[in-house]
Amino acid sequence: MKTAIYPGSFDPITMGHIDIIRRLAPLFDPLIVVVANSRSKNYLFQLQEREELIRPNLIDLPNVRVESCDGLIVEHARKVGASVMIRGLRAISDFEVEMSMANMNKKLAPEIETMIVFTSQEYGYIASRMVKEVASHGAKLDGMVPLNVAQALKQKFAKEKR
Amino acid sequence: MKTAIYPGSFDPITMGHIDIIRRLAPLFDPLIVVVANSRSKNYLFQLQEREELIRPNLIDLPNVRVESCDGLIVEHARKVGASVMIRGLRAISDFEVEMSMANMNKKLAPEIETMIVFTSQEYGYIASRMVKEVASHGAKLDGMVPLNVAQALKQKFAKEKR
Amino acid sequence: MKTAIYPGSFDPITMGHIDIIRRLAPLFDPLIVVVANSRSKNYLFQLQEREELIRPNLIDLPNVRVESCDGLIVEHARKVGASVMIRGLRAISDFEVEMSMANMNKKLAPEIETMIVFTSQEYGYIASRMVKEVASHGAKLDGMVPLNVAQALKQKFAKEKR
Amino acid sequence: MKTAIYPGSFDPITMGHIDIIRRLAPLFDPLIVVVANSRSKNYLFQLQEREELIRPNLIDLPNVRVESCDGLIVEHARKVGASVMIRGLRAISDFEVEMSMANMNKKLAPEIETMIVFTSQEYGYIASRMVKEVASHGAKLDGMVPLNVAQALKQKFAKEKR
Amino acid sequence: MKTAIYPGSFDPITMGHIDIIRRLAPLFDPLIVVVANSRSKNYLFQLQEREELIRPNLIDLPNVRVESCDGLIVEHARKVGASVMIRGLRAISDFEVEMSMANMNKKLAPEIETMIVFTSQEYGYIASRMVKEVASHGAKLDGMVPLNVAQALKQKFAKEKR
Amino acid sequence: MKTAIYPGSFDPITMGHIDIIRRLAPLFDPLIVVVANSRSKNYLFQLQEREELIRPNLIDLPNVRVESCDGLIVEHARKVGASVMIRGLRAISDFEVEMSMANMNKKLAPEIETMIVFTSQEYGYIASRMVKEVASHGAKLDGMVPLNVAQALKQKFAKEKR
Repeated sequence: MKTAIYPGSFDPITMGHIDIIRRLAPLFDPLIVVVANSRSKNYLFQLQEREELIRPNLIDLPNVRVESCDGLIVEHARKVGASVMIRGLRAISDFEVEMSMANMNKKLAPEIETMIVFTSQEYGYIASRMVKEVASHGAKLDGMVPLNVAQALKQKFAKEKR
Repeated sequence: MKTAIYPGSFDPITMGHIDIIRRLAPLFDPLIVVVANSRSKNYLFQLQEREELIRPNLIDLPNVRVESCDGLIVEHARKVGASVMIRGLRAISDFEVEMSMANMNKKLAPEIETMIVFTSQEYGYIASRMVKEVASHGAKLDGMVPLNVAQALKQKFAKEKR
Repeated sequence: MKTAIYPGSFDPITMGHIDIIRRLAPLFDPLIVVVANSRSKNYLFQLQEREELIRPNLIDLPNVRVESCDGLIVEHARKVGASVMIRGLRAISDFEVEMSMANMNKKLAPEIETMIVFTSQEYGYIASRMVKEVASHGAKLDGMVPLNVAQALKQKFAKEKR
Repeated sequence: MKTAIYPGSFDPITMGHIDIIRRLAPLFDPLIVVVANSRSKNYLFQLQEREELIRPNLIDLPNVRVESCDGLIVEHARKVGASVMIRGLRAISDFEVEMSMANMNKKLAPEIETMIVFTSQEYGYIASRMVKEVASHGAKLDGMVPLNVAQALKQKFAKEKR
Repeated sequence: MKTAIYPGSFDPITMGHIDIIRRLAPLFDPLIVVVANSRSKNYLFQLQEREELIRPNLIDLPNVRVESCDGLIVEHARKVGASVMIRGLRAISDFEVEMSMANMNKKLAPEIETMIVFTSQEYGYIASRMVKEVASHGAKLDGMVPLNVAQALKQKFAKEKR
Repeated sequence: MKTAIYPGSFDPITMGHIDIIRRLAPLFDPLIVVVANSRSKNYLFQLQEREELIRPNLIDLPNVRVESCDGLIVEHARKVGASVMIRGLRAISDFEVEMSMANMNKKLAPEIETMIVFTSQEYGYIASRMVKEVASHGAKLDGMVPLNVAQALKQKFAKEKR
């Protein structure tokens, strides 16, 4: 089987991301979850925090590993010998950015193929951005994020308010 | 008649918002305009300012009232006993965020129904963001915002330049 | 409470439509489901068949009734004294047609307000068009359409093949 | 490697389709191109013709084969033991139909994963529909379709005019 | 000034089309309105009818002329020496077809530039398709189409009903 | 020929922008490239820098000139007597903002016509935002920006890291 990477901000990881990883784990070996850092984004969780929030949720998947990447994703993909870069789409508004990035990545690394999967419909409404908004008001996140992430969000916003 | 809330940033209120409120006032009782505060947005006008800029424009509508909300909209909706949450759509780009929010709100408060109305075509081009851009360059806002808002924008940007 | 109509082709009615009707029934009285006929569409089921396939699924809702309309929807809305015309959106691709129709209806009948509701996420994938495609190949429609519609589709395509 | 199917109308196959097949051939074994037949579409080329126009363009790819399917795609996918169903997206307007179909297929065959690839930018403008329009006026199709397809289109429209 | 063509189906011409022609007439000389015929469309009005319904509405514009084209638009553009092909966009749903066509035309005739103008907001809701639907039910078309078109629609549908 | 302006952020100019300027230079005289400054945007390059990065790439086009504008674009257009304002669209996501701006500009300056051109397909993936992201990681920008811009980006990010 081919090596695939699944890059993203994961700020923080949601049940939608985890669902995609579990659906794709049988298709690629290894499947590498890559936590990305972009100079133009303000993250709630730092790079290492985001990576650590993911790992406990995937320990039963032996062919999946988590890495972080402070540089260009496509170079990380090359370094690990990936044939496929997986992107999850929640909505049309993500579509064009993905198509543009797929074309730019094709230019930078023609040997790597971008493949898109759709978020499962029961998780389609869960965007990291909205999860943070809901959490910032202290509301429950049942079924939207794993328990360790719910805990981390609670602590983060408790700290902010102090 | 049922209680409805019409939440938004209203930073500041425009003729498009006011048109929606006037069209819906006959359908719900009370219709509560809720000024929202999100942790991830930078507002030009503070929460109380935004609320005060709305009120003088609706004084002839006895079943409409204006409130501000510093927490989660859906909890405010619950507190006031709303059956309906109204959202105004100017454009497709708003659509998916609204659909996602509607689904998340359905999860948080299944008894409240989100309903969408379209901005009237003569106001469709008026986005608060563009109103602020135009005002920041000192241009006229005739027919885009009510007079008290035009005045407030003028003062705000005069202050910024000093 | 105000009178609302919920017009559509319903060729045939799906679980997505029924979910919308049940969610909105508490908000309007009466809520009238209007089966429409357009000169430019080819229907699988004739106008009366479409109407009859709906009715048994709503008998427990006393304030909901089903009517068919061979003319312009907006005139039917006027005749029954509706204040609101409800449209269900499954996807962005429906959005612009709806916005255009809302604007045209506003011109033809300014006193009637178009309001949009989103299809619940668990039914979002069910389009009448795809239901017919799946049924034409003899596949199961569990959870997509009510039983009487599944039965009617089976008979219709059995007849076609003969 | 996993079995994948790449279904489509291919009415007729274009250079965009062939580019996708060539890019994905190294990732799956076998990669099965499935020519589909829908009851609601009017095809220019019949099912067998469409299948035969594809084959000569892929003879150098030993792990790729071409099959036609007169039933439901997802059942064909199951029959050949596919883990992945590949769809090529040219544009956003295809997006929602694909997302809806992916969700419906997930319901019908949960073990098969739909994956999307983007058409390469140099072929993005080539839609089968437009190829047929251009061909019907007798214009050149250089670089849009393979030679055997250009020939078949020419004959088809010559016949139509007689 | 440069020669421009403004091609379309014009089945029939609406106030939205006429508004675009009047706005662009000062910018190009000549501005040629080209009535197109596509093999895959079913028109309500035949090619010559559509052309004749346009002409009386533009007689005061000396640099505008109306022609019909039964072949490929881009070849007609070439024949009349056009530098610019104008397309009017009502909505996003038209966008991708236009972008695709612009790219294909660029391939077929690199010397001709496609330029897009937006329909004025007061005419944005008027699609020929909806005008026909409304007219087929005998409703008024005030302000949507010119008088001669309203008349022609009335006759056409009166004839159909007989 | 008519005067046209082509406004934008140009932060920095890309090969996509230059392609548009070269395609339109034969159609307007003069064609004025206007570098805009918005109060709500954070630029990587300051207004004067952005202007200076453009100029060397257009010196062979005698009817093209570059100007910067710290106020409202539409007032600049008026000052230089422009009949046309040109906007380049890379993608649908730009569409609605452009349509809204076109409508607002029409209100502010009814005598100026907004015209849209599509980015050529080979440059469609090049967004200034992505160019900056790629450059911030030190990757090559071959064919995406002119040489002087590649140089400026390299210096800018070298400085940032220090």
